Amino acid sequence: MESIGYGAVNARQPLAKLDFARREPRPDDVHIDILYCGVCHSDLHTARDEWGNTVYPVVPGHEIVGRVHSVGQQVTRFREGDLVGVGCMVDSCQQCASCKEGLEQYCEVGFVGTYNGEEMHSGGMSYGGYSNNIVVNEKFVLRIPENLPAAGAAPLLCAGITTFSPLRQWKVGKGHKVGIVGLGGLGHMGVKLAHAMGAHVVLFTTSSNKTEDARRLGADEVVLSKDADQMAAHQNSFDFILNTVAAPHDLDAFMVLLKRDGTMTLVGAPATPHPSPQVFNFIMKRRRLAGSLIGGIRETQEMLDFCGQHGIVSDIEMIPIQEINTAFERMLKSDVKYRFVIDMASLANEAQAVKGA
Amino acid sequence: MESIGYGAVNARQPLAKLDFARREPRPDDVHIDILYCGVCHSDLHTARDEWGNTVYPVVPGHEIVGRVHSVGQQVTRFREGDLVGVGCMVDSCQQCASCKEGLEQYCEVGFVGTYNGEEMHSGGMSYGGYSNNIVVNEKFVLRIPENLPAAGAAPLLCAGITTFSPLRQWKVGKGHKVGIVGLGGLGHMGVKLAHAMGAHVVLFTTSSNKTEDARRLGADEVVLSKDADQMAAHQNSFDFILNTVAAPHDLDAFMVLLKRDGTMTLVGAPATPHPSPQVFNFIMKRRRLAGSLIGGIRETQEMLDFCGQHGIVSDIEMIPIQEINTAFERMLKSDVKYRFVIDMASLANEAQAVKGA
Repeated sequence: MESIGYGAVNARQPLAKLDFARREPRPDDVHIDILYCGVCHSDLHTARDEWGNTVYPVVPGHEIVGRVHSVGQQVTRFREGDLVGVGCMVDSCQQCASCKEGLEQYCEVGFVGTYNGEEMHSGGMSYGGYSNNIVVNEKFVLRIPENLPAAGAAPLLCAGITTFSPLRQWKVGKGHKVGIVGLGGLGHMGVKLAHAMGAHVVLFTTSSNKTEDARRLGADEVVLSKDADQMAAHQNSFDFILNTVAAPHDLDAFMVLLKRDGTMTLVGAPATPHPSPQVFNFIMKRRRLAGSLIGGIRETQEMLDFCGQHGIVSDIEMIPIQEINTAFERMLKSDVKYRFVIDMASLANEAQAVKGA
Repeated sequence: MESIGYGAVNARQPLAKLDFARREPRPDDVHIDILYCGVCHSDLHTARDEWGNTVYPVVPGHEIVGRVHSVGQQVTRFREGDLVGVGCMVDSCQQCASCKEGLEQYCEVGFVGTYNGEEMHSGGMSYGGYSNNIVVNEKFVLRIPENLPAAGAAPLLCAGITTFSPLRQWKVGKGHKVGIVGLGGLGHMGVKLAHAMGAHVVLFTTSSNKTEDARRLGADEVVLSKDADQMAAHQNSFDFILNTVAAPHDLDAFMVLLKRDGTMTLVGAPATPHPSPQVFNFIMKRRRLAGSLIGGIRETQEMLDFCGQHGIVSDIEMIPIQEINTAFERMLKSDVKYRFVIDMASLANEAQAVKGA
């Protein structure tokens, strides 16, 4: 199927307009016209081959919201016009223990990424959401609550589920004191979600100018993590800490804030290791360090429904697709509140202009 | 109360015979004649002030088994002649949340160590089990099953509970594949206990000559952790790994052997940090790294009862107290299978000989 989008043809050149072919829809596929796509750090890492596994050309984007254009004849759960989403995965083996438990993100064969993934059936590569359309097996299509602003809902598909899943796994709720480390795309969703779950939320940041914003988003307290006195006041007091910071940093500073049996879950993997956390801090309070990767499809739908009930979307800055390279540069400087979302109408307009010229 | 024992008067001199005074028994105290005392690495660290907190003179020893000599008038659970044990703790605040949950080892005020601890009531220091007797509040006295050989039971009070507690906390049992890293005093107890709990036990060691012994102790498989092929064969397969090695080592080699949602618990704290574990290994399988410190008094009694039911004691090498300094040196070289236990009759004999001279 013919598609247009913005992609990279190698690691050095900026993203540019690209015509490419997606697979033809199969009977169990949903063909989606993309309205919005969020911009995730992974998009940049992959476009620039910073993980060393990029197959070019690559079309990034895995925070996709759109309307169903058409469905294959075996598709039962969606129909033309539905508001739908696609996140980080478009397929998985469906056979392993993890898939059977609805934890496709831990598929033992390996899930198929929404872009730069090798498709299960065709063997071709997958292309992401910086594009006018996408074709996805209905199992990996999510329903977006119609009451949510569609653009703001796009980042829920990655930033939202990445923070929702560990909060749910560790049963965060009323009566819990929960820390969120970092106020970026992930962190700001963590604050909103943990607040909506009823927890007492403390936001840790290195920037004193984020205090007001953090409170507006739902934080009950804001702690400057560079301030030893502020940190010391919270020692041994947290049930759970969600650490969204991917840059290498001192984990011990947060580990000692956990209560006995408390857990800190990391959702960002640094390019170089964190300083090694002290074993003593684990042993003396039976504390735990854990990791978490996005979330399963069933859990992603639960997250979207939860966001629909609570009126939660991402705070976004909308951009036309022509500004994606500038957005990448600003994202590297954390100069965005809190997620860029591409308005895909800009792609159609460009195509139109080219066609008209 | 007058006591004799072996202790250190400073960090440089070997342990030697020492006369010292314990507190007089209070109405809720049990006065115990010590029969046997296990030799733990902590004894050596403290005697040599390797943790920088030793108050001299110090009398080590916190794997104590003895017979009740007499009890205070308020003591209800023990009487003269009972076979009893004392582990790493002799008191705690009894007021904090951890104490109230029976987790005195995590007492928020800090538990009183069996030696080199500041006593709650007298303010004096506590003296350990390398001695003819000890006076302990009945709350911190354990009952030793009479069917167990008393000398072999002594190491259960530290090495036993340190491995039992995390195995229980992480619900190890039938159908679980459990790894034990290291075959020393702790590791050999871990193998015995995990086996008795019904798990499939894999022992990881760096010494190929430990294979036969590990199997005799209850390991179903033995893996040479230096052998990459042997390690690779176990990737993503463990429910739980108990890591008893205190020397700095590569944690990732074991983290990758855990299944999704698997946990590795560390019970040894290295003097210098382990190499920093890779966050990627946590995130991609939602794995966890945890710590654990000995166990609570209630759980220690459960462990002793469990050992009584299953006929489990430590493999020991019995020594007279006069050989303690040689034993320390051999322990440093891991030259013991698997715990030295002091026969306290040797102390009485020495005292007798001196008296007779």
